[in-house]
Amino acid sequence: MTECHISILTASLLALPTCFAADGMDHLNLFIGTGYNGHTFPAAIVPFGAVAPGPDCSVGEWHSAGGYHYDKTTILGFSQTHLSGTGLIDLGDFMLMPTVGDVPLKPGAEHKPESGYRSRFSHDDEMAKPGYYQVRLQDYGINVELTATERVAMHRYTFPEGENRQVLMDFKHYIPGASGVKHAYVRVNDPYTVTGYRITDSRWATSRFTYFALKFSEPMANYMIRDEVRNLDYPNIPELASSKMIAAFGFAPGKILQAKISVSPVSMRNAMENLETEIPHWDFGKVRKSAEAKWAKELGKITADGPENDLETFYSALYHTMIHPGIDQDVNGEYRGIDKEIHTADGFTNYTVFSLWDTFRALHPLDTIIHPKRTGDFIKSMLSHQSQSSHHMLPSWAMHHNENFCMIGYHAVPVVVDVWMKGLVDVPSEQIMEALLATTTQPGAPKMKFNNYPQWYGQQHYLRLGYFPDELTRSGTSLTLEHAYDDWTVALMAEKTGNKKVTTDYLARGQSYHRVWDPKTGFFRGKLEDGTFYEPFAPRAYHREDPKDREFTEGNAWQYLFFVPHDVYGLIDLVGGPKKFGERLDTLFTMPPNEDGTAVGDVSGLIGDYAHGNEPCHHVAYLYNYIGQPWKTQEKVHQIAREFYKPEPAGYIGNEDAGQMSAWYVMSAMGFYPVNPCGGIYVIGSPLLPDFTLPLENGKTFQIKAQGLSDKNIYIQSVKLNGRPLNNMWITHADIMRGGHLEFKMGSRPSKWGVNSEPVPLADGK
Amino acid sequence: MTECHISILTASLLALPTCFAADGMDHLNLFIGTGYNGHTFPAAIVPFGAVAPGPDCSVGEWHSAGGYHYDKTTILGFSQTHLSGTGLIDLGDFMLMPTVGDVPLKPGAEHKPESGYRSRFSHDDEMAKPGYYQVRLQDYGINVELTATERVAMHRYTFPEGENRQVLMDFKHYIPGASGVKHAYVRVNDPYTVTGYRITDSRWATSRFTYFALKFSEPMANYMIRDEVRNLDYPNIPELASSKMIAAFGFAPGKILQAKISVSPVSMRNAMENLETEIPHWDFGKVRKSAEAKWAKELGKITADGPENDLETFYSALYHTMIHPGIDQDVNGEYRGIDKEIHTADGFTNYTVFSLWDTFRALHPLDTIIHPKRTGDFIKSMLSHQSQSSHHMLPSWAMHHNENFCMIGYHAVPVVVDVWMKGLVDVPSEQIMEALLATTTQPGAPKMKFNNYPQWYGQQHYLRLGYFPDELTRSGTSLTLEHAYDDWTVALMAEKTGNKKVTTDYLARGQSYHRVWDPKTGFFRGKLEDGTFYEPFAPRAYHREDPKDREFTEGNAWQYLFFVPHDVYGLIDLVGGPKKFGERLDTLFTMPPNEDGTAVGDVSGLIGDYAHGNEPCHHVAYLYNYIGQPWKTQEKVHQIAREFYKPEPAGYIGNEDAGQMSAWYVMSAMGFYPVNPCGGIYVIGSPLLPDFTLPLENGKTFQIKAQGLSDKNIYIQSVKLNGRPLNNMWITHADIMRGGHLEFKMGSRPSKWGVNSEPVPLADGK
Repeated sequence: MTECHISILTASLLALPTCFAADGMDHLNLFIGTGYNGHTFPAAIVPFGAVAPGPDCSVGEWHSAGGYHYDKTTILGFSQTHLSGTGLIDLGDFMLMPTVGDVPLKPGAEHKPESGYRSRFSHDDEMAKPGYYQVRLQDYGINVELTATERVAMHRYTFPEGENRQVLMDFKHYIPGASGVKHAYVRVNDPYTVTGYRITDSRWATSRFTYFALKFSEPMANYMIRDEVRNLDYPNIPELASSKMIAAFGFAPGKILQAKISVSPVSMRNAMENLETEIPHWDFGKVRKSAEAKWAKELGKITADGPENDLETFYSALYHTMIHPGIDQDVNGEYRGIDKEIHTADGFTNYTVFSLWDTFRALHPLDTIIHPKRTGDFIKSMLSHQSQSSHHMLPSWAMHHNENFCMIGYHAVPVVVDVWMKGLVDVPSEQIMEALLATTTQPGAPKMKFNNYPQWYGQQHYLRLGYFPDELTRSGTSLTLEHAYDDWTVALMAEKTGNKKVTTDYLARGQSYHRVWDPKTGFFRGKLEDGTFYEPFAPRAYHREDPKDREFTEGNAWQYLFFVPHDVYGLIDLVGGPKKFGERLDTLFTMPPNEDGTAVGDVSGLIGDYAHGNEPCHHVAYLYNYIGQPWKTQEKVHQIAREFYKPEPAGYIGNEDAGQMSAWYVMSAMGFYPVNPCGGIYVIGSPLLPDFTLPLENGKTFQIKAQGLSDKNIYIQSVKLNGRPLNNMWITHADIMRGGHLEFKMGSRPSKWGVNSEPVPLADGK
Repeated sequence: MTECHISILTASLLALPTCFAADGMDHLNLFIGTGYNGHTFPAAIVPFGAVAPGPDCSVGEWHSAGGYHYDKTTILGFSQTHLSGTGLIDLGDFMLMPTVGDVPLKPGAEHKPESGYRSRFSHDDEMAKPGYYQVRLQDYGINVELTATERVAMHRYTFPEGENRQVLMDFKHYIPGASGVKHAYVRVNDPYTVTGYRITDSRWATSRFTYFALKFSEPMANYMIRDEVRNLDYPNIPELASSKMIAAFGFAPGKILQAKISVSPVSMRNAMENLETEIPHWDFGKVRKSAEAKWAKELGKITADGPENDLETFYSALYHTMIHPGIDQDVNGEYRGIDKEIHTADGFTNYTVFSLWDTFRALHPLDTIIHPKRTGDFIKSMLSHQSQSSHHMLPSWAMHHNENFCMIGYHAVPVVVDVWMKGLVDVPSEQIMEALLATTTQPGAPKMKFNNYPQWYGQQHYLRLGYFPDELTRSGTSLTLEHAYDDWTVALMAEKTGNKKVTTDYLARGQSYHRVWDPKTGFFRGKLEDGTFYEPFAPRAYHREDPKDREFTEGNAWQYLFFVPHDVYGLIDLVGGPKKFGERLDTLFTMPPNEDGTAVGDVSGLIGDYAHGNEPCHHVAYLYNYIGQPWKTQEKVHQIAREFYKPEPAGYIGNEDAGQMSAWYVMSAMGFYPVNPCGGIYVIGSPLLPDFTLPLENGKTFQIKAQGLSDKNIYIQSVKLNGRPLNNMWITHADIMRGGHLEFKMGSRPSKWGVNSEPVPLADGK
C-alpha cells in the first residue's frame, strides 16, 4: 500500500475525503469503451456535468456517437457537450479548434487533414483523467488541455512560439451531421467575449436550443465570420445568424491562450451567468483540481480493493455510471422544459439524458444506493417532464427538453416506484400515482404510417386486448412483456398506498405476458389481433429485414423468453417447471452461433444466444438462482465479467448505454444484482473483487468482503450478513442502508449454498 | 351631413369620441396601395398592432411584399403578421386556411388552385374596413372574416352545410419564401388549443423568433401533422418539430368555426397570456367594434373636410401612417431585444419596424404632432435597441429584434434629437447623447467583400476623411450627404445641453457635404480616397450595373443634388445663388425622360427627374420657398398630390414605405412639411383640403382652413396664424401644440405671399 501514502499526500492537497477515494482516482482508464462500439468518451467532465469538453474525430458515424473513437488518428476539434455510451448520436456543441497558419475554413478530410481544420494526434501524446483531457495536435504543434465545472468548459492551448494564433468555432459542427443544425447565431460582444446559440433538429431531439458564452484570456486581434449559406465573409462584423457558419478568432503570437465556454438551455445571459459564477478566474489548475476533488468524492462512494486489472475495470465502470443523467439547469435554477418553455426548478436540480430502456435495469437501482439524494432529483426531473409533456407521459428516452421515444416501454414507471418505495422522493404519492396512471393509460394514436413511437400507437390495442397485436404494432411481443412488468410496479405502489382498484387492475395487467405465450413452441411470440400467432415462427430470427421489426425489439424469442422480472416463478411454471426452465437457460448459454451469422446491431456480447451487449438479457444469468442452481449464476457472472469487461479501449462489448452496462458490472462486482429493478430486492451473484466499502450518504457504512476470491475461486461457499449466516440468495436495499457487512466465503467448486433458499420475494416486504 | 347623424349613432355605440372621427372611418379605402408596388395590405389591424391577419396571395414576390396584391385572383390563406408598404419582404406568420373536401396538403399553384390549398376570390366578395377584413373563398364556399386586437387575430369562418371542415396551418409559409423558415415546432395541447413557434432567417431579420397560441371555438375531431423533411405523417401525435411542416385540423360538419391566434416574440406561454388577456371570449362582433373604436380614436386625431376623393386619399394616408412602428411586446411587458434576450420594458411600450431612411423625413415629425406620447415610446424603443446592440448603434432598419442595415445613414439620430427637442421623451439627455455619439462614431469594419452595410464599413473613412471615398464604399456620395445631415442634428442637441466640444465637432461634420461637391459640374459626386472625383461622371445614371451601386443610393446626382436639409441656404450658395438654384430646380422638374429609360427599381413617380416614388426627393418641392418662389412649391405640391396619390389600389406611385409616403401627403395636405425633419420648423406648402381640426393630446386644438381652395385655387394669397398675418413661410411645432388656427386664403394665381419671407430658421429658436 505504498501508493496509498502518496495518495494521502495528494488527497490532503486536493481535500480528498479518504485514502480509498484516491485509490479510485488512481485506477481509472477513461479510454475504456472508446473503442469498438462502446460510445464512451475521454472528455473532461465533472460527475453528472452538463458540459464535457473533449475531442471530436468525426461526424455522423455511429461508432463515434460520443464524438471520439480510439481507432481514429485525427481530431476535428473540441466540442463542449457529448453523450456517453448511448446508442444514439447527438450533441457536439460549439466546437473550438486552435490552429496556426492558413487553415482552410472547413473540416479537413480524415485522410487529408490539411484540406481543412483537423490535426493528427497520437495516443502517446494524449491523456484522459477525471476532469481533465490533454492532447498534442501534431499538425499545429499545439498542446490542448481541457477541464470543466458543471456548466463551464475551460480550454488551455499552448501554441508554438511566434505563430499567429487562431481559434475556429464551427457552428455547423454537430456529431449527427451538419444538416441537423437548423439555425445558429453568434455575437462578438467585445474582444474577449462571444455569445450565441443554435437550434438543432436530430431524430433524438427535434427542437433543441443551446446557448453559449465564451471568454478568451486575451483580446482578439481580429475575427471573421463566414456565412456558408450566403457565401459571404464578415470580417470584424460583430453579429451573424446562419444555419451554416464558421467563426475564426485571431490572436497575436504568444504561448498560452485560454478560453472558458459555458452552455445553457435557456439563454446567452444565463450562459454568461453560469460562466461567471462557476469560473470567475483564469486558474486552469484550480478548476482541474476542483474537478478531481468532485470525482474523488463521488468515486469514493464505493471503494474497492483487488487486482489492478479488476480495479481498473471496476472504477472505470463506476465512473461511467456518473455521466448520465446530467445536470440540465442553469446556476439561477432555470431550465427549458419538455414543453420548450423556461421553468425554474423549485427545490431540485433538473437532470436530463434518460435512456430508460437501458438504465431502469441496474443504473437507477445502483443510484438509489450511492446517490440517494440525487436520485430524488432524477424523479422530480421526470415528474416535471411528465407534467409538461404533450403526451402526458413520464420520460422514455428524453434528452435536452426533447422526448424521442427511442426504444420501447415506459420504464420510468418502475424507476419512479422503486425510488418512492425507498423513500427517496418527497413528492405526495397522489401526484406520483397520477403521473404513473397518465403514462400507462395514454391511448396513443390510432394508426401510424411510420416506424417510430411503437408503444405509442399500439398502446390503445394493449389497453383493449391486453397485448400488442403483432400486425398493428412494431415489436409487439417485447412491448407486451415490458409493459406487463412496468404495470406490475404500479400495482406495487398502489397496494402500498391502499388503492385497491389500481392494485387489482395493474396486478392483472402485470400478468399480460401470459397473453403472448405460446405453449406449443414454449416461447413468447407475436400474436395477431384475432388471437392467432404470427407465422412463420423463427425463434432465433431478429426480423431486421421486416421494416416493422416484428416481433421483438433488438432481440429474438430466445432472448426475450426470460423477461418476466416481476414474476420469475410464474415464468418458470409457464415454461414447465424448474427443470425445463434450467434446460432452457442452459440451451440459451450454449447454443451454437446464430444461423443468421453474427448478431445484428446492438445484439453483441454473445454466449450462445445470450447477448450481453444489449439489455434484455442483463438479468438472465441471475435466473439460475430461482431454480436452485446458484453455482451456474456464479459461473456466468464471472464469465460475462471476464469476457465482456476489459480494461482497454475496446473493453466494452457493445454500447455502454448511458451507464447501464457499467452499472451491471458495478453491482455484479459487489456480489448482487436487481433482477427485479423495482422493490429493493438484490439477488446474490458472485463477487468479482474481494473488498468493498460503501460510506453511505446516511452516515452508515456497508462493507462487502469475499474471502478467498480468485480467478478459480468464483463459487460461493457461504455468506454472512452482519455476522449471521445468509442462506437465502438475496439481500434487501434496507440491509445495505442500515450499514453492516456482507461476507462471502469463496471456493473453487460449486457448493450447496443457496440451493435451498426460500423463493425470492417480489419486493422487499412482500 | 346626414351621414354624420348615423355616425353619431354608431359613435355612441362604439364610444367614439366625436362625429369627426366617424367621418374619418367613412372615408377610407384600404385597398389603396395594394396595387402597383404600393406594398400595403387590406389586413385587419388595430392602430400600431402587432398582428394584422390578412390574405396572402403569393410568396417571394416583391410586388406582394405585404402578402397581398390587388391584381391577384387567388388566396393561399390568412397569415397573422404583415409588413405594410415596405421595400422589403418579410413576415406572413402562422397562416391559417379553412378548406373543405380533400385538399392536397401543399400550396396550390396560382394558375391551378386545386393542385393544393388555394382558392379563387373576387373583389366583389371582399371587404376591408378598419380592423376587419372579409372575403368569400369561391373554391370552398367559405366566408372568411378577420378582426384583431393588438396581439390577437380572430378568424370567423362560415362553412357550407354538411362538409367536413378543415383548417390548414402551413408552417413553411413565409412571405419571403419557405427556405427562410429554419425551424418550427407545433404542439396540440388539447382538442381546442395549439401552440408553437418558428425561427425564420431572411435578409431582413436573420434570427427571428415568433411564437403563437391558437384556440378554436370547437374541439378538433382529428388532426394530422406532416413533416415534409422526413416525409412522414403524424396523425393525432400532439407534437412535431421540422423546418417544413403543415398541420391539418379537422372538425365535424357545422356552420361557423372561429379561431383566435396570438403571437409573441418571447414564448408560447406569453402568446397564450396575450390571447387570454386580449380576447377572453368568442364574440367576434365585440372584437371588431373594439378595433373600429381604436381606429376612430386614432383617425380622429386629424379630422378633415373636403371633396370625397380627397378625403378618401387623406384618411387612407392617415390610416397608413399608423401601422408601423408597431407594438412588439407582450401584455406582461416582455419583449425580445436586438440582443435576442428577453427584456421587460420598464415604463414604456416597445415598438418595432423602424424603416428610418424613409420615415425620418415626415412620418416621425407627424407623429410628434398627433402621437406625442407614443413617439416618446418609439424613442425609448430605439434607445433600448442601441444599448442592446452589438453595433452600439441606434436602429437603421430594424424589425422584430433584428437589424438589417437596409438603406444608409443613421437616421434615428435626427428623430431622437427632434423628439427630445420637442420634450417628448423623459430620458436623461446624457443617456441620449451617449447613444448619439456611439452611433455616429461607430468605426465599422475595415473592409468588406460584399454589398451590405455600406455605411458600416465606410464609416471609418468618413471619420478619417470627412467623406465616404467612392472606391471604398458603396453609395459614398449619398452617405456623405446623409451623415452630414444627421451629424448636424447632434450639434443641435449638444448646443442645447451646453456641450461645446460636441457642438463644434458636429457642426463641422454637418458641413461635410462640401467635401463631395464638384464646383466644375455643379453636382455632388463620388470622390476617391485621393481627393479626385470618380470618372466618368453621368449625372442621371443610377449605376445599377455596378455591383457597388456607386455613387448614390437609389438615386442619381440630380436627385441627391438637393439633399442638404439642414443648410439649404448653404447649398444655394454652393450652387451659385438663388437664381441658379431655381434654374436647377426647374430643370429637375422639367427635364425629359431619363436617357436610361424608365427609372429603375424604387425610383418612380417621376416629374422630370424628380422621383416621388422614392424618398430622397420628398422635400424638394418645398425648396422653391427658400429662393422666393413659393408659388412653384404650391404648384408642385398639388401636382405631386394629384398625380401620385389616388384613391384606388394602384394609387401610390411606389412603395408606401412604412408610412413615409402617406406622411408626406398628410402633412402636405395640411399645408406644411418638415423640410428639415429635426428641430420643429414646418415649411408652408399649399393645403390640399380646405378644413382640418387637430384635437391634440395636450387638450388644445389646432385648426387649419383654406378658404377658396379648389382644383384651380391652389395658390396661397395670404396666411393668418391665430388671426395675425403670417408673412414667413413656416410655422413651428410649438405654434401647433399651443393650439390655434391657421388660415390660408387661396386663389387661382400665384401671389406675392411668402416671396419676401425671412430666411427659414435651421430649427425652432435658431
